[in-house]
Amino acid sequence: MESQTSGGVKMASGSMQKTKVAIVGLGNVGSGVARLLLDHGDRTARHAGRTLWLEKAVVRDLAKHRGVDLPAGILTDDVEEVYNNPEIAVVAHLVGGLEPARTIMIRLLEAGKDVVTANKALLAEHGPELFTLARQLGRTIAFEASVAGGIPIVTNISQCLSANGILSLEGILNGTSNFILTKMDRFGTPYAEAVAEAQRLGYAEEDPTMDVDGSDAAQKLAILAHLAFGAQVNWRDIPRVGIDSLDVEDLRYAAQLGYAIKLLAEARLVEGKLDLSVSPTLIKRRTPLAEVQDAFNAVRVVGDAVGPVFYHGLGAGQMPTASAVVADLIDTAVGRTRLTFETLEPFSTNSPPRVSLRNSDELPGRYYFRLRAKDHPGTLAAITGVFGKHQLSIASVLQHERGETLEDQQDDLVPLMIMSHQGAEGSARAVAEEIEALGVVRGHVTRLRVKTP
Amino acid sequence: MESQTSGGVKMASGSMQKTKVAIVGLGNVGSGVARLLLDHGDRTARHAGRTLWLEKAVVRDLAKHRGVDLPAGILTDDVEEVYNNPEIAVVAHLVGGLEPARTIMIRLLEAGKDVVTANKALLAEHGPELFTLARQLGRTIAFEASVAGGIPIVTNISQCLSANGILSLEGILNGTSNFILTKMDRFGTPYAEAVAEAQRLGYAEEDPTMDVDGSDAAQKLAILAHLAFGAQVNWRDIPRVGIDSLDVEDLRYAAQLGYAIKLLAEARLVEGKLDLSVSPTLIKRRTPLAEVQDAFNAVRVVGDAVGPVFYHGLGAGQMPTASAVVADLIDTAVGRTRLTFETLEPFSTNSPPRVSLRNSDELPGRYYFRLRAKDHPGTLAAITGVFGKHQLSIASVLQHERGETLEDQQDDLVPLMIMSHQGAEGSARAVAEEIEALGVVRGHVTRLRVKTP
Repeated sequence: MESQTSGGVKMASGSMQKTKVAIVGLGNVGSGVARLLLDHGDRTARHAGRTLWLEKAVVRDLAKHRGVDLPAGILTDDVEEVYNNPEIAVVAHLVGGLEPARTIMIRLLEAGKDVVTANKALLAEHGPELFTLARQLGRTIAFEASVAGGIPIVTNISQCLSANGILSLEGILNGTSNFILTKMDRFGTPYAEAVAEAQRLGYAEEDPTMDVDGSDAAQKLAILAHLAFGAQVNWRDIPRVGIDSLDVEDLRYAAQLGYAIKLLAEARLVEGKLDLSVSPTLIKRRTPLAEVQDAFNAVRVVGDAVGPVFYHGLGAGQMPTASAVVADLIDTAVGRTRLTFETLEPFSTNSPPRVSLRNSDELPGRYYFRLRAKDHPGTLAAITGVFGKHQLSIASVLQHERGETLEDQQDDLVPLMIMSHQGAEGSARAVAEEIEALGVVRGHVTRLRVKTP
Repeated sequence: MESQTSGGVKMASGSMQKTKVAIVGLGNVGSGVARLLLDHGDRTARHAGRTLWLEKAVVRDLAKHRGVDLPAGILTDDVEEVYNNPEIAVVAHLVGGLEPARTIMIRLLEAGKDVVTANKALLAEHGPELFTLARQLGRTIAFEASVAGGIPIVTNISQCLSANGILSLEGILNGTSNFILTKMDRFGTPYAEAVAEAQRLGYAEEDPTMDVDGSDAAQKLAILAHLAFGAQVNWRDIPRVGIDSLDVEDLRYAAQLGYAIKLLAEARLVEGKLDLSVSPTLIKRRTPLAEVQDAFNAVRVVGDAVGPVFYHGLGAGQMPTASAVVADLIDTAVGRTRLTFETLEPFSTNSPPRVSLRNSDELPGRYYFRLRAKDHPGTLAAITGVFGKHQLSIASVLQHERGETLEDQQDDLVPLMIMSHQGAEGSARAVAEEIEALGVVRGHVTRLRVKTP
């Protein structure tokens, strides 16, 4: 067997079949993929039944340090060398963002390459276009790494749980948010400080907006909802609230009530309609999802045959993501990807969606509200009156001592937490808006979901 | 698309490709498989890209009630109808035990069928023989359901984590034991009573020996160790202790020390050698494995790229196991099973094992000992002297008030719990044996493992 090593030494022995591979985009994940292919060529060959031979690695800037030592002739800044090399069969497409990522994927497919990608934004935005093109050209796209990093949730839903009708899927899909929430919960770190620490440790981007406002989780949920339920949903249509609306007080109050707060992405089939949401959610402590710490991800799937299956692992980071990419490279080289791709036709728009989304106003849930209100007689009556008007019944009220800010002191403001029974999202939204407009309430009303079992 | 239903109604529409399937053994799991195929034919067809058509279901006793309503012509008590029907391509082999299960599988393979099985004892005992035969005949054997029921751990190790070198694997693989331990822990139920309750609820067999003595878990661990590490190990060579050695006192003392006790199956690669063991193990509470309750199973795999991945789900029961069997039927019909089977060559003895087992005497671990000793001066010195002799250092000692039995009262016996630091299994075994022989100690010394992080 012939093998490569990152030291540039090549050994020849035997004549194992060879699949030539390229990496486009040698950032953090790309370097990890290169390391797995080069340093563990024997292992990969054993699991693939053939050598995965790294032929080219395309970068934008040849001068930049990579953290991986490539044999001579592999590194290039010209992606045409990949398009134009008919021997390269499979390409790890590790370019972030929408463009030029989209154009590069199209060119790769047109050049006859099977593609493996980690770019969930690209799939969430252009999935149907790219997968239709791949099918027309007889090519495949694998995307295990696009959701939940090291947790192989795409294969598990598409293949391992294929005997099931999926009833629900809940996930902590954004490691950045979970890291920030863990800091806030464990150390009482204020939100802004926790964000800064996440950035310092490399868990958050310089601009963490997509992570903390729920967009990233919504994109991943759109992909999983497609695989699990046959939904065809634009991620922007998923009702979403980010953790950027949270105050460290919310985590403290939640803890007093026996809950942790997690950014939860939920998909649930109820009476034939699909409920989708992304929201910071109060989850009973000592349940598996509530105990997911730091940058870990977790997914809980309930199938009508298998019952609940819970997955927990690293949702991001160089090697966990590279693990998913290389698994896809192996699946593609072995031929499993093609079989699954042709059978399940992911992101196909040939057949109508199998489920429709519930109108988000009708989405059922329990809710937690936090607000600051005047410590005057009649205040609570005015607030609870709004709940009554919208037929959202109150499960518990927690009123604390006067707040600590100067404004709280001067204006006699007390923090008030209200937990509702089950109600509709539309009612909860209306309640929050009307309460905000009351004269006795100051500022924004925080509204979070409460996980029902 | 043509489809079957369990009501016996058949509908014809379209001309989807059809894979004819048989079930041999229509017990609890077999009936579940039949229900999934019959009641959810459309779904299965969508996930398989072809209809899985239930052609025959073989039973021993035609008169026995099945809990599933089969269309006419399917039920038979003559397995030859399966062997001799060349149209049947795939067979769910759901016969327990070793014989006639082994002979039936051989006949199925010889008749040109691809086989799906849930029989882990058969694989643990005759895996190499059966898989070699399948390869010679150009057939496949799929066995997702043989380990951990609804948790798709076989596919996850063989395929999803294929980019990784597996460093360790820990599992709660016997739901019966875990159900019994949960009862003992939560309600202080004595062992024998908890076993009886497990039997009453259908979680334990009439003869639960293989479950409670660790044999079942050892068989599953042997299969997983083969897949994850390339080990070729006879399950009888895995050092194993069952929960039948436990007293409810052990769970109480463990709780006082902050631990739960679980029947843990462990495989760990240390310095190129594989450590395997099955033992009731003290696990720190509030860690995922310690919180696995009732008849659930869980597996924690650590890969050198992906890091830790944790799986939790129902390890047994009709529909979870049927979910795994039907996933295998779909994989086999689609062709994925063949690709994986030919690539990984499971249970092949063509190549030497990739790892050797550590001599069980050298197996490292921390240990918990419980014994009853005379409440006399010098007793503790005699006992701790034995530890010193075998260089097993003591981490903590817990001595309780005199025991409650008549013998304890008359003979001044007190319960004594000793937790060791890291040491070798051989030393721990020798310590237990020598302490048992001391005049100041009465009866059996219970020795359990303590999970190190």
